[in-house]
Amino acid sequence: MNQIVNFNIVFKVISRNLFILTGALLSCLGVAVIFTEPLMPFIWTSAISLSLGLFMHFSTHSQIEDAAVTKKEAYLTVSLSWALISLVGSLPYLFSQAIPSFVNALFESVSGFTTTGASILTEIESLPKSILFWRSMTHWVGGIGIIVLVVIVMPTLQIGGYNLFTLESSLQDKIRPRIRSVGHRLLLIYLVLTLSEIILLLLGDMNLFDSVCHAFGTVATGGFSPRNTSIAEYSPYIQYVIMVFMLLAGTNFIVFYYLYKLDFKKALNNEELRFYLKIILFVGLIITAGLFFQTDRSLEQSFRESFFQLISIVTCTGFATADYLQWPTFLWIIIFLSMFLGGCTGSTAGGIKMARHLLLLKNFKKILTNLLHPNAIIPIRLNKNTLNDSTNNSIMTFITVYGIIFILGTILMVASGLDGETASSSVATCMAGIGPGIGTVGPASNFAHLSLPGKSILTFLMIIGRLEIYTVIMLFTPEFWRN
Amino acid sequence: MNQIVNFNIVFKVISRNLFILTGALLSCLGVAVIFTEPLMPFIWTSAISLSLGLFMHFSTHSQIEDAAVTKKEAYLTVSLSWALISLVGSLPYLFSQAIPSFVNALFESVSGFTTTGASILTEIESLPKSILFWRSMTHWVGGIGIIVLVVIVMPTLQIGGYNLFTLESSLQDKIRPRIRSVGHRLLLIYLVLTLSEIILLLLGDMNLFDSVCHAFGTVATGGFSPRNTSIAEYSPYIQYVIMVFMLLAGTNFIVFYYLYKLDFKKALNNEELRFYLKIILFVGLIITAGLFFQTDRSLEQSFRESFFQLISIVTCTGFATADYLQWPTFLWIIIFLSMFLGGCTGSTAGGIKMARHLLLLKNFKKILTNLLHPNAIIPIRLNKNTLNDSTNNSIMTFITVYGIIFILGTILMVASGLDGETASSSVATCMAGIGPGIGTVGPASNFAHLSLPGKSILTFLMIIGRLEIYTVIMLFTPEFWRN
Repeated sequence: MNQIVNFNIVFKVISRNLFILTGALLSCLGVAVIFTEPLMPFIWTSAISLSLGLFMHFSTHSQIEDAAVTKKEAYLTVSLSWALISLVGSLPYLFSQAIPSFVNALFESVSGFTTTGASILTEIESLPKSILFWRSMTHWVGGIGIIVLVVIVMPTLQIGGYNLFTLESSLQDKIRPRIRSVGHRLLLIYLVLTLSEIILLLLGDMNLFDSVCHAFGTVATGGFSPRNTSIAEYSPYIQYVIMVFMLLAGTNFIVFYYLYKLDFKKALNNEELRFYLKIILFVGLIITAGLFFQTDRSLEQSFRESFFQLISIVTCTGFATADYLQWPTFLWIIIFLSMFLGGCTGSTAGGIKMARHLLLLKNFKKILTNLLHPNAIIPIRLNKNTLNDSTNNSIMTFITVYGIIFILGTILMVASGLDGETASSSVATCMAGIGPGIGTVGPASNFAHLSLPGKSILTFLMIIGRLEIYTVIMLFTPEFWRN
Repeated sequence: MNQIVNFNIVFKVISRNLFILTGALLSCLGVAVIFTEPLMPFIWTSAISLSLGLFMHFSTHSQIEDAAVTKKEAYLTVSLSWALISLVGSLPYLFSQAIPSFVNALFESVSGFTTTGASILTEIESLPKSILFWRSMTHWVGGIGIIVLVVIVMPTLQIGGYNLFTLESSLQDKIRPRIRSVGHRLLLIYLVLTLSEIILLLLGDMNLFDSVCHAFGTVATGGFSPRNTSIAEYSPYIQYVIMVFMLLAGTNFIVFYYLYKLDFKKALNNEELRFYLKIILFVGLIITAGLFFQTDRSLEQSFRESFFQLISIVTCTGFATADYLQWPTFLWIIIFLSMFLGGCTGSTAGGIKMARHLLLLKNFKKILTNLLHPNAIIPIRLNKNTLNDSTNNSIMTFITVYGIIFILGTILMVASGLDGETASSSVATCMAGIGPGIGTVGPASNFAHLSLPGKSILTFLMIIGRLEIYTVIMLFTPEFWRN
C-alpha cells in the first residue's frame, strides 16, 4: 500500500514514548505514597497513558526495525509525540485539581516537556509534593527526549544544519546500527549529570526532594522549582552548584560524548563551546561591573547574581536568584537581549543557539570582505568542516524565520491585551524555552494573569520553538500531504 | 601614493552634490522672495554650501573621469555625502529659528534627505512657506540621490544583491560609458512623474504651492506635508491621485526604464512588481473588509482609507488620510507588520523591500522541499536569472541583520524612556523611512516629545536604513581602513 505516511511506524514510536511516560507517572505515584498524598491522579493518568500506548502498539503490525522510516514519518512522529505526551501530562494537574483549568494545565505541561519552565502557578509550595515532583519530572523526561532529538534524529533528518552541529557525517551515514550505542551513552551522560548534581546539592544541605527536583530542572535546562522563590533563598554554595550545572547542561552533549571517549582535543577545540564560554564571560563581566558600581552589592554578590541570571537565561533554564527587573535599566535590557542567544546546539537549551550566531557573524564578515574584494573565496567553516552553501543558507533562513515568528507572536500577544515589553518578552522567553520574561512576566511574577488566547499562543510557540520551527511548520504544508 | 582612500575623488563627488544642494537652496530663496519672507536663512546656507563645495572642488586635483573609483572610495563618498548634506540642510531650520534646537533640526533634515518624513514639528502651517518648501525639497533631492544610488551605484558595488534587482549584468559590466545616459533617463522619468502629479493635483483644485510640495513628497516616497492634517482634508480625487503616485514611486524604476524603451514584456513580467501589486491588493482588501464590516464607513470610504494608508506604509511614504490607530486593533497591527515590507528595489522606497521577501519565501519553500527530498536541486530564480549562492546568502543575511538592528534599536529606544509599542514602531518606521509609527508617534502625532538620545538614535537609524546597512557599517570595520 503506497500511503503518504505509514501510521504503523508513527504509532509504534509514540507507543514506546507513552510507555516511558507511564514509567515516569508511576515514579510520581511512589512519591505520593511516601508523602501519603492522593494517589488517584497518578493511577488514572498512568492507566490512560498505558492503555493508549498498548492500543497504539497492538493496533499496528509493522516492526520499526524492519521498516525504513521515511522523513515524513519522522517529522510527524516528533510533533505528534510532543503534543500527545503534553496532553496526557496535563492530566495529573487536572485530576488533582492543582490546576483546574484545561488551558492552564496544558500550558504547565507543555512548559514542562519543552523544558521551558514558564509557570501559571501563583503559589507553588502548598501543592502536593507528588504534583511538584511530576512538574519537575516533565522537564527531565522532556530533556532526554530533546537530547535524542537533537543529537540523533535531527542530524539524520538534516534539519536546520543539525547534521553539521553534532555528530560527524561518517556517523550519520551509518547511523542506524549505532543509534542504540550512541543513545545509551547519551542517556548515561544525562544520568551522571543528574546524579552528580543531586549529590552536590545534598552536600549543601538541600533536602532530597528539593535536590532531585532542582537537578531535574537543571540538566533539562527547564527551570521549574518546588520553591516559590526559586533558588533565591538557598546558600551561595547551592547557587554556585546550580550555576555550574546549568552551564554544563547548555553545552553540546557531543562534547561530553568526546570526553567520554577520552578525545579531549575534539572536546575542547569545539568552536561553539569556546564561543559560548566567551560570550557568557564577556556579558557576565559587564553585568557584574554594572551591579558592583551602580548598586551597593559586594563584588562577590554582584558576580554571583550576574552570572547566575545570565547563565540561567542563556542556557534557557530560567531559575532565578534575583529579580533582574530591579537592576538598573540597561542591565535588564542586556538580559532581554540575551534571550535571543540560546545555549549550544546538541544540548537541552533552546533559542537560536550559539553555533548559528557564530555562523551569522562569519557570514556577515564574509559579506563585508566580499564587498571590498569581490573575488575573494571565503569558505564558512565550523569545527574545521566547510559548510556547503545550501546548509549555510538554511541556517541564515532559520534565524530570519525565527525573527519573523517572534514579531508575529509579539503582535498577537499585544492584540491579546499585553503591553509591548511583556508581549515581546513572553514570546522571546517561550520560543527559546527560558521561563521568565520582562514586564509583568518577570522572574518574580508568573503567567497566570494572561488571557486564555495569550496562554494558547504561548503554548504553541513553546512547541514550535522547541522542535526547531521547520519540524512543525512542515506539517502544515500541502507538499507534506502530497504523495 | 598608495593611500587607503583617495580623498581627492571623494571630495570631488561630494563637491558636486553640494553644488546641486546650492541650487536647491537658491530655489527656496526664490520662494522666500515670492512670499516676502526672510531671505537670510537661505542666503547664508547657500553661501556656506557653495563655499564648502568650491573648497572641496579646488583643493583637490584629480578628475573623476580619469581616476578609477575604488569600492572603498564609493562607500565613503555615499555615506559622507548623506551626512554632510543633511548637516548643511539643517541650517535653514536653525537660521530661521523654525527649529531652534540642533538635534531637532538635524532630525528633520535627515528625515527629509532619507525620504523618511518623520517630523519633530508640532505646528506646521504657521511656518514660513520657504521653510516648508525647503522641507519638501529635501525629500525631492534625497529621492533623486537614492534613485541614482540604487539603480547605478549599488549594482556596481554589488551591495545586498542590488546587481540582481536592477540593471542586467551586461549593462553592469560596461556601466561606465553608459552611466550618463542611464542617469539622464532616470532623471527624466523622475521629472515626468513629478510634473504629472503636480498637474493632476492642480486639476483637483489644490493650490500650486501645496501641489509642488506634495508631489515632491510623493515621488520621493517622503511624506512631509505642508498641512498639519497631511492629506486628510483633501477631496477623494486628490487622495486617489496621491495614492496612485505613491504606488508608482514605490515601483522599481527599471520598470519605467523598460517602458521608456518600449520593452513592455520585460516591464510587466517583472516578478517583484507582480509580487508588490499582489501583496498590496491582498492586504488592502483585508483591511477594507475589516473597516467596512467593523465600522460604519461606506464601502468606498473603507476602500480609499485602507488602500491609502497601506500604500503609504508599504511604499514608505508616510502621508495619511486617517489615523489608523483609531481602527480596530487587528487592523493597525496589520499596518505595523506592513512596515517591514517596504516597496520595490530600485525605487525611492525603503525597508526590507519586496524582492528580498520574495526570495525569502523561495528559500523557505526550497528548504522545506529539501527536507523531504534532500537530493532535489532547486535553483532560486528572480526574473529568470538564477541567483548564485553567495548573492542568495547575502540577501538572507541582510534580512537577519535588519532584524537584529531593529531589535537593538528597539531596546535602546525603550532605554530612552519609551513604551514598547512606540519604541519598536519608531525604530521600524525610521529604519524603513516611512514616517508615522504606532503608540505616541502615530499619524496624528509627531516625534517632538522624544528625548534627545532617542532622537539621535532614530537619526542614525534613518541613515543606516536608507543606505542599506552594509554601506554604513562597513566604514566602522578595521578592514576598511587597512591597506
